[in-house]
Amino acid sequence: MFYAVIPAGGSGTRLWPLSRADRPKFLLALTGTSESLLQATVSRVAPLAGPDRTFVVTGVAHAAAVARQVPRLPDDNIVVEPSRRESCAAIGLAAAIIARREPTAVMGAFSADHVVGDDDRFVEILRAAIAAAEDGQMVAVGITPTYPETGYGYLEAGEPVGSGPARRVLRFKEKPEYDLAVKYVESGRFYWNASMFVWRVDVFLDELARQQPALFAGLTEIAAAWDTEERAAVLDRVWPSLKKISVDFAVMEGAAEKGLVSTVPADFPWNDVGDFSSLGDALSRSATDNVIIGADESVEQGRVMARDTTGSVLVTRTGRLMVTLGLRDVVVVDTADALFVCDRSRAQEVKEVVADLEAESAQQYL
Amino acid sequence: MFYAVIPAGGSGTRLWPLSRADRPKFLLALTGTSESLLQATVSRVAPLAGPDRTFVVTGVAHAAAVARQVPRLPDDNIVVEPSRRESCAAIGLAAAIIARREPTAVMGAFSADHVVGDDDRFVEILRAAIAAAEDGQMVAVGITPTYPETGYGYLEAGEPVGSGPARRVLRFKEKPEYDLAVKYVESGRFYWNASMFVWRVDVFLDELARQQPALFAGLTEIAAAWDTEERAAVLDRVWPSLKKISVDFAVMEGAAEKGLVSTVPADFPWNDVGDFSSLGDALSRSATDNVIIGADESVEQGRVMARDTTGSVLVTRTGRLMVTLGLRDVVVVDTADALFVCDRSRAQEVKEVVADLEAESAQQYL
Repeated sequence: MFYAVIPAGGSGTRLWPLSRADRPKFLLALTGTSESLLQATVSRVAPLAGPDRTFVVTGVAHAAAVARQVPRLPDDNIVVEPSRRESCAAIGLAAAIIARREPTAVMGAFSADHVVGDDDRFVEILRAAIAAAEDGQMVAVGITPTYPETGYGYLEAGEPVGSGPARRVLRFKEKPEYDLAVKYVESGRFYWNASMFVWRVDVFLDELARQQPALFAGLTEIAAAWDTEERAAVLDRVWPSLKKISVDFAVMEGAAEKGLVSTVPADFPWNDVGDFSSLGDALSRSATDNVIIGADESVEQGRVMARDTTGSVLVTRTGRLMVTLGLRDVVVVDTADALFVCDRSRAQEVKEVVADLEAESAQQYL
Repeated sequence: MFYAVIPAGGSGTRLWPLSRADRPKFLLALTGTSESLLQATVSRVAPLAGPDRTFVVTGVAHAAAVARQVPRLPDDNIVVEPSRRESCAAIGLAAAIIARREPTAVMGAFSADHVVGDDDRFVEILRAAIAAAEDGQMVAVGITPTYPETGYGYLEAGEPVGSGPARRVLRFKEKPEYDLAVKYVESGRFYWNASMFVWRVDVFLDELARQQPALFAGLTEIAAAWDTEERAAVLDRVWPSLKKISVDFAVMEGAAEKGLVSTVPADFPWNDVGDFSSLGDALSRSATDNVIIGADESVEQGRVMARDTTGSVLVTRTGRLMVTLGLRDVVVVDTADALFVCDRSRAQEVKEVVADLEAESAQQYL
């Protein structure tokens, strides 16, 4: 039986002014359907893991919104972190809780705010990853790169492992410079690391114990108290002491050195929605397409007239009429209290705008 | 004694969505001060004609707003047209009313929605025009062209007239093609026709009687009843029969053929604010300057952060934050119910947007 674990965190600065501190990316419907990215993630894993075996790990600030967005998940499957401790604590706690239920269960970790372009293909690839994980591999799904992206980490793949599509992961690579990224893509041996991991919980916890013994001990103690009256007291005492570290650094890189990590190459479209330009990439069929993202259900649908406009990302979260004329590769984001207009090539720099608003304590816009 | 006549009409389509049917351009503060274009026009002529000798001619739709914007003008100086009859009827009625008061008065006609960049120089030039008018000339102020604009009509000037700067106007020229406009500008003999006319009312009315006898008869009948109890009844009966024609076509072209028209060359910056791009031209010191136009007094000032943005016209009529990033030569107009984003070179095409909204009866946006 397979379990899905969905860490749902994030600061909401890269899709400002659409995403805010109280409306992070994973709560927003960004893909042209009424589903938020979180809801789409839960739907995507549903053929593999039903609601009882799907966990969302989120912070106190978003617990209520998450619980309401995924009403079919049992209360206990919404794991609320008292404070942010990065992905290893979040995923590790879920793994430890699952291990007490089913010690050799296979689980997968899936970010709540990424976009996948082909859910059927996703399920096929995941089935192969699950098969490799049942054999004891720690699987990092490797997205086949379609261009030399410098904003993602890469996996370097080696010889095949087992009888399926899995290949050994020789090492994890940091975000490369452009020239190196070009070489990676040309080699055919490198894959994007989507931080999408599949493993048996016992295999993962053994590696966690070996590489991060204090973190392992803390998470084990919390998991032991999870289904008791002591949960809150133990969380309160232990959680603040846990190390802030990503699961990539904490466990996966060391496990790869020991030869425990493999990858299953994945050819479905995937995007981490790092900014409005990449959101456009994820949703458009061509570089000249416009991507128009309408209001969510709580707001009257805004109307967009895009005249002689190409390659642009137009987001309307108000009931207003938006007219664009003669634009190329522009991002327009229309929200109730803030308007953002930007050349698409500069979309990443919105984080500097947010940093400046933070510096001047312009809380109403954060 | 000099009289100023200010026709205040216009459909409000060229500065959409800022200008609307109920908020035409002349009622808007567009020049970075709190004065509307109409108020700025009244202020500009004040050194030549005080409130008692300044008339505004406007339609029923805008009479109340006009009256409130220029409270120092006597009630009777707000001339309200029952229906739109183009500029000859509007200006001619004012001329006829003034003539009954002072038969040889000099009057000038000044559009309510143009921008002049140097009010002191404007007054100097007008004094020269008034002097020529006192000698019986019909004066069309000729703006010295600074580039080959194809959106304006031109005046072709000939030999000097009298001892001042006035020159004979040989003929009026329609809006030229670009190549011809270049020749006009290079010749030094052509000026932009700003439809800014100065004449003795008796000279004008004589020409009107000669060229447009029916229109002259109608306007004279209305003016005769103006200060009587019959005003409303006569207006109601006569006004609808008046010819719809501009004063340029109705009178000035024919008067030029008779040698009655001269021009006083004017070197003050002038712009008819035909679209947001020309508004930017009128208000910026260089092609890379941004022009930022804030909210009017009835709306909380919107805040604009223009980051690495040049040559752009940014208009905010809401209390929202506007952030632009990496834009070149873009128009952004943010109003309560509609947002317009456009490449600056395409600003004129907004009239096609408005035409399409009209065609589908989207009244709320007109």
